[in-house]
Amino acid sequence: MERYDVAIIGTGPAGLEAAITSKVRNKSVLLIGGKGSSDKVSKAHTIQNYLGLPDVSGEDMAKAFLDHAKSMGVEITEDKVNAVYSMGQYFAIQCHGNDYEASTVIVAAGMTAMKPFPGEMENLGRGVSYCATCDAALYKGKTAIILAYSAEDEPEAEFLAERADKVFYLPQYEYSGTLGGNIDVQLDVKPESIEMKDNQAVLNTGSGIYAADGIFILREQIAPSQLVPGLEMDGNHIKVDRSMATNIKGLFACGDITGAPYQYIKAAGEGNVAALSAVSYLNNFKKN
Amino acid sequence: MERYDVAIIGTGPAGLEAAITSKVRNKSVLLIGGKGSSDKVSKAHTIQNYLGLPDVSGEDMAKAFLDHAKSMGVEITEDKVNAVYSMGQYFAIQCHGNDYEASTVIVAAGMTAMKPFPGEMENLGRGVSYCATCDAALYKGKTAIILAYSAEDEPEAEFLAERADKVFYLPQYEYSGTLGGNIDVQLDVKPESIEMKDNQAVLNTGSGIYAADGIFILREQIAPSQLVPGLEMDGNHIKVDRSMATNIKGLFACGDITGAPYQYIKAAGEGNVAALSAVSYLNNFKKN
Repeated sequence: MERYDVAIIGTGPAGLEAAITSKVRNKSVLLIGGKGSSDKVSKAHTIQNYLGLPDVSGEDMAKAFLDHAKSMGVEITEDKVNAVYSMGQYFAIQCHGNDYEASTVIVAAGMTAMKPFPGEMENLGRGVSYCATCDAALYKGKTAIILAYSAEDEPEAEFLAERADKVFYLPQYEYSGTLGGNIDVQLDVKPESIEMKDNQAVLNTGSGIYAADGIFILREQIAPSQLVPGLEMDGNHIKVDRSMATNIKGLFACGDITGAPYQYIKAAGEGNVAALSAVSYLNNFKKN
Repeated sequence: MERYDVAIIGTGPAGLEAAITSKVRNKSVLLIGGKGSSDKVSKAHTIQNYLGLPDVSGEDMAKAFLDHAKSMGVEITEDKVNAVYSMGQYFAIQCHGNDYEASTVIVAAGMTAMKPFPGEMENLGRGVSYCATCDAALYKGKTAIILAYSAEDEPEAEFLAERADKVFYLPQYEYSGTLGGNIDVQLDVKPESIEMKDNQAVLNTGSGIYAADGIFILREQIAPSQLVPGLEMDGNHIKVDRSMATNIKGLFACGDITGAPYQYIKAAGEGNVAALSAVSYLNNFKKN
């Protein structure tokens, strides 16, 4: 497997800046995220205080950022990261689509309101999971519930349904899909809490109770502490020092995920620092 | 005297970003520095990694920054800061041209190689000074040595010479001025060290010894710890936390002066954070 110098998670200003700075330093870069930069950027109204781009719309800013990255040969790998494991000498990055390896990782995944459901964290890994394609093999002859947050989750449901006996698909978005067969699509269900009862994962909702062998929660984003086991947090944010280093050697973070203010230029500045810290880590690593 | 909400020292990326962000938050801004943004920016060759401005020359980048600031009504006050004093409720900012007051101060003065001469720090305030116009009144009938680092120092020499009996002017730059009268211009003198002997300030140089009542060192920049009495340093850099706060309440710092990496986007990002921290400090201050 190709081992990248720097894997960057997130294609907002922090991730894109980290990518171009890593490129300037001649490092091989894996940039994982959405092709359209971050929704937060492209949907923003006028931004007044990104120095050098006066009075720019979110859409134009996202375009300027993506064009800049493209002009430097930065490519975006469209995938969703499920987990990042430190293997000592390198990191294993488990995604929905593929697995990857990198010597350093920069987490620039932004912030979304991501309050877990009561019972979610307690049952993670034993009843609750964030990646249907990763766990599909375990569901032969079993049943599953999928809480889906985007139309992109529909192929995951189909993949899981090829193994599982039955899949309850609970779209938390405007559903206009064509799922069928052993996939039971249930519209307008508001999840409330999760519990384990008699080895069954039970989802309590505003419209009744669902039970199955497991529950998959396919949020756009996973809480950073779940994404990277052992990662030290500061409330909802990844704890970093001024060099953007986390408590895990070789793993850096930048942008909104490291804390307020949630500002584009702050995120980009931190992306630059994180990349240079990763480069410095790589260079020291090779010496030792 | 008008009291500004935010006084910003330095017109590089950090200072300009701090200024526009303060403006966005409707604060009154005093921005002190050179009209041409920082020399470091405008003299830079191509910059590849300022996200959103691909492959830009230093000159074009400086222009983009200054145009952005101007479009938001940010004006640059051309002056050199001599000292910043915390007065508890506000800051007094002593400049060569004028004095100012502000509720908060953001130091974004950049980094220059600024090794003091042996004996300089020890004799600061008693023989050695950084502002000729500030101290001129004390030099009636006395003699002085000026170490000058730019043609802009020539009017300071003339002002001092109106009071002093004699001024030795030692340009450390390409001199093409017309100083005369009681100003003795000595070219190509390399200063080596300073000492006090029999109440005289003595400058040892590569071409002999100069003695006078006082020595003025008119560097482009003053060491931050001299600029702001009591400011906590981390080596050559101002010590800041992630909110860009220094050890002095209401005083923030950003950009190169807070440490490496010396990168434009890092400096701008920190300028944004410093400004928002200053705004937050102002708002809390008004509440209490």
